[in-house]
Amino acid sequence: MKTSPEIDQLKLLFNQYKEEALKDYYTFLKFQSISSEPAYTDQVIACADWVSAYLEKAGFTVERWPTSGHPTLFAHYDKAGPDQPTLLIYNHYDVQPIDPLDLWESPPFEPTVRNGEVYARGAQDNKGQCFYVLLALKALMEQTGRLPINIKLCIEGEEECGSTGLAGILEDKRGKLQADYLAVVDMGMKNATTPAVTLGVRGMVTMDVTVSGSHTDLHSGSHGGMAYNPIHALVGLLANVRDASGKITIPGFYDDVKAISAEEKKLLSLDFDVKEYEKTFGIKPTGGETSFPPQERGWLRPTFEVNGITGGYSGDGFKTVIPAKASAKVSCRLVPNQDPDKIALLVSNFLKKNAPEGTHVTVKVRSGDGKALRARADSPVATAFVMAYEEIFNKKCDRDYSGGSIPVISALAAVCGAEVVLVGLGLPDDCIHAPNEHFGLNRIENGFLSIARALQHISS
Amino acid sequence: MKTSPEIDQLKLLFNQYKEEALKDYYTFLKFQSISSEPAYTDQVIACADWVSAYLEKAGFTVERWPTSGHPTLFAHYDKAGPDQPTLLIYNHYDVQPIDPLDLWESPPFEPTVRNGEVYARGAQDNKGQCFYVLLALKALMEQTGRLPINIKLCIEGEEECGSTGLAGILEDKRGKLQADYLAVVDMGMKNATTPAVTLGVRGMVTMDVTVSGSHTDLHSGSHGGMAYNPIHALVGLLANVRDASGKITIPGFYDDVKAISAEEKKLLSLDFDVKEYEKTFGIKPTGGETSFPPQERGWLRPTFEVNGITGGYSGDGFKTVIPAKASAKVSCRLVPNQDPDKIALLVSNFLKKNAPEGTHVTVKVRSGDGKALRARADSPVATAFVMAYEEIFNKKCDRDYSGGSIPVISALAAVCGAEVVLVGLGLPDDCIHAPNEHFGLNRIENGFLSIARALQHISS
Repeated sequence: MKTSPEIDQLKLLFNQYKEEALKDYYTFLKFQSISSEPAYTDQVIACADWVSAYLEKAGFTVERWPTSGHPTLFAHYDKAGPDQPTLLIYNHYDVQPIDPLDLWESPPFEPTVRNGEVYARGAQDNKGQCFYVLLALKALMEQTGRLPINIKLCIEGEEECGSTGLAGILEDKRGKLQADYLAVVDMGMKNATTPAVTLGVRGMVTMDVTVSGSHTDLHSGSHGGMAYNPIHALVGLLANVRDASGKITIPGFYDDVKAISAEEKKLLSLDFDVKEYEKTFGIKPTGGETSFPPQERGWLRPTFEVNGITGGYSGDGFKTVIPAKASAKVSCRLVPNQDPDKIALLVSNFLKKNAPEGTHVTVKVRSGDGKALRARADSPVATAFVMAYEEIFNKKCDRDYSGGSIPVISALAAVCGAEVVLVGLGLPDDCIHAPNEHFGLNRIENGFLSIARALQHISS
Repeated sequence: MKTSPEIDQLKLLFNQYKEEALKDYYTFLKFQSISSEPAYTDQVIACADWVSAYLEKAGFTVERWPTSGHPTLFAHYDKAGPDQPTLLIYNHYDVQPIDPLDLWESPPFEPTVRNGEVYARGAQDNKGQCFYVLLALKALMEQTGRLPINIKLCIEGEEECGSTGLAGILEDKRGKLQADYLAVVDMGMKNATTPAVTLGVRGMVTMDVTVSGSHTDLHSGSHGGMAYNPIHALVGLLANVRDASGKITIPGFYDDVKAISAEEKKLLSLDFDVKEYEKTFGIKPTGGETSFPPQERGWLRPTFEVNGITGGYSGDGFKTVIPAKASAKVSCRLVPNQDPDKIALLVSNFLKKNAPEGTHVTVKVRSGDGKALRARADSPVATAFVMAYEEIFNKKCDRDYSGGSIPVISALAAVCGAEVVLVGLGLPDDCIHAPNEHFGLNRIENGFLSIARALQHISS
């Protein structure tokens, strides 16, 4: 692998825009577009206005889609003509809150450069990654008068608070969102020199499980050995969900699991450095189904996870109580073809059916979590980004999955009918969602190159 | 069973004292002797002074034993002579706090009579039950110039805050505390017409169990299926402590259990009204070792109880976390011959040995909990109170156990070398430890009669 003449040309183009680009990037970062806090609504809207104007100046037709919350921006360029495919790009213009403010070394909405990194809330997530998309599209348009393929942009304003607004209008906007490919530019790579594309995320369903016994707390002296302690029932029920090998014992849990093909699996970066994991997290990867290798468990297998448990007394000292109830928060990560509602029902039935006499189980299922997403590892859009990254980084591009869940992306992918890839240049230590978030100026350049070059690859 | 001439005589005696008695009882109740709150120390001491003076006026030699906290009062009467046995009586002069104050219908330290019941903090626990002891001894002394047996009184001032002070001096006072019999006058009966003596309490040992995984909370998307969730480890460990029949599976847990003899068991009131239990508590008694009948499980069998559990996120909404640790508060109720320290070690070893790879278990054992206490059901002191109660109530007296634990009583019984009985006229709805605590004036009389008559029975 070595750098291509096309990349060299694009680097020259970036250099022409560099000064203007940084100014615009800083302007974008200065909007306090914190979507979860109503006090910042004006700033969120001002930020949307700015993005909108930027895209119109670049030659896009921009629509502002009202939602139950902050608007989603939709931009369209169709002048590449009907022979060229359409790529839908997803970004978001909202940011996380800034607490705790006193841990920031420079004000979160005054972008400051230290050692080539821009420090600001949103510097990476997602304004940095959104900005290099906008910049690449604008520069290509201005330089060549056109884009190599048709482009749609979907830039939402509520990613950091659950994407409720966008999720609510997806069905209505199905027609406008149709595309051949979807690139979600909100992801990262494991280190600064190894590019990666992400080919899927797990789905998720979450539940609140409550086991109740008596209508009142009981004294464990008077009732110990007589009343069935709801904590005992809960730990018994949860322990029985898994066998000794970590396999989930709930009948039907794996029935719909669609395995990944051996060919596709071979393309994935499933190598896993146990020593490195142990060094970083202090533990070996001993959880989950031990019959599968660790990275496969983390990306390609469903899970049953207890994310919280509470019951009885947990303060200082001791209280000899048999509590009236005990509760757990449970989540299942899902893989393709598993339906969240069906899995929730299987879990709920299993727990209720096995509740010991003298206890009663209720399960409250949360909605809004999504199905899994799995993209072809060798689709044109995945291949285009892999090629672009390898040219830019001069290194083999990883093909990863994410063990996490991005409900709105799964839903967006389903609605737009496109082949998907998730890309981006985030790094594990960018401090997104934390004080001193930052993003390298070199990554603005590499991001610019990756978008521009991927468009060329998709077109050619 | 019908009332005896001795009871009739004692009733006449009570009537002579009734007016004076109520005045003294109210005075006793007015001291704000809340032992757990340092602000009330002066009132605790003033209360001790008053009890001390009352006993000296009645003809006792009173010693005030300093402790690490509030003093214990020790009174002695030995003029019944060496041919008569010595009965040690235990009471306490301290009371519970009064919160929440706004739920009291009359001020907690201004005794108020409604429907024959005296409402005040301590009205029953334990000032009411202590007072009828004091009154009976004083009246008998004044009427006859002597008591039928030798009496020692041990009246502590920290029962409501752990009895640390008394526990700390027991060994030093071993000589003075020697007695043939010990009567703990701090118990109750199941309803107003059925008297009871209590022949034993369970011991207890308590522990804090913590399971840790990574040194940091992990995201359940990125790590689910790879990291061993400490909550999973904890629920698995706790669930495995018990088999399907409720039997505790910890090796050696039952090794030292000393079974009660069939003859003694026959004397106990082990009948258990499942329907009544279900009506009161909303559940059937399905907990514990199902191979034993309910009341036996509650009184005569050891337990392993989880009194609190916590780990991960338990607030509103959901957090997809694999927590760094999860914890439980565990107690074991113990029966005679089980050593708290040994049981704690067995539990601790069992949990540590079975911790899954990738998790680490620590167990912090609390000290200060006590061994079980089991008294002979047909000892002279038990029989004396049974006879007295049956004469007073004209009804068969229950022979009960308590499933709870009173560490200081187990220790006191061991030190004084006496045969023990726990007695008293408390009722389940006296609201001890709660607002509107109350005690019936008729129970002051019946308590007076029970003490005076039991002394006669022990003597004869």
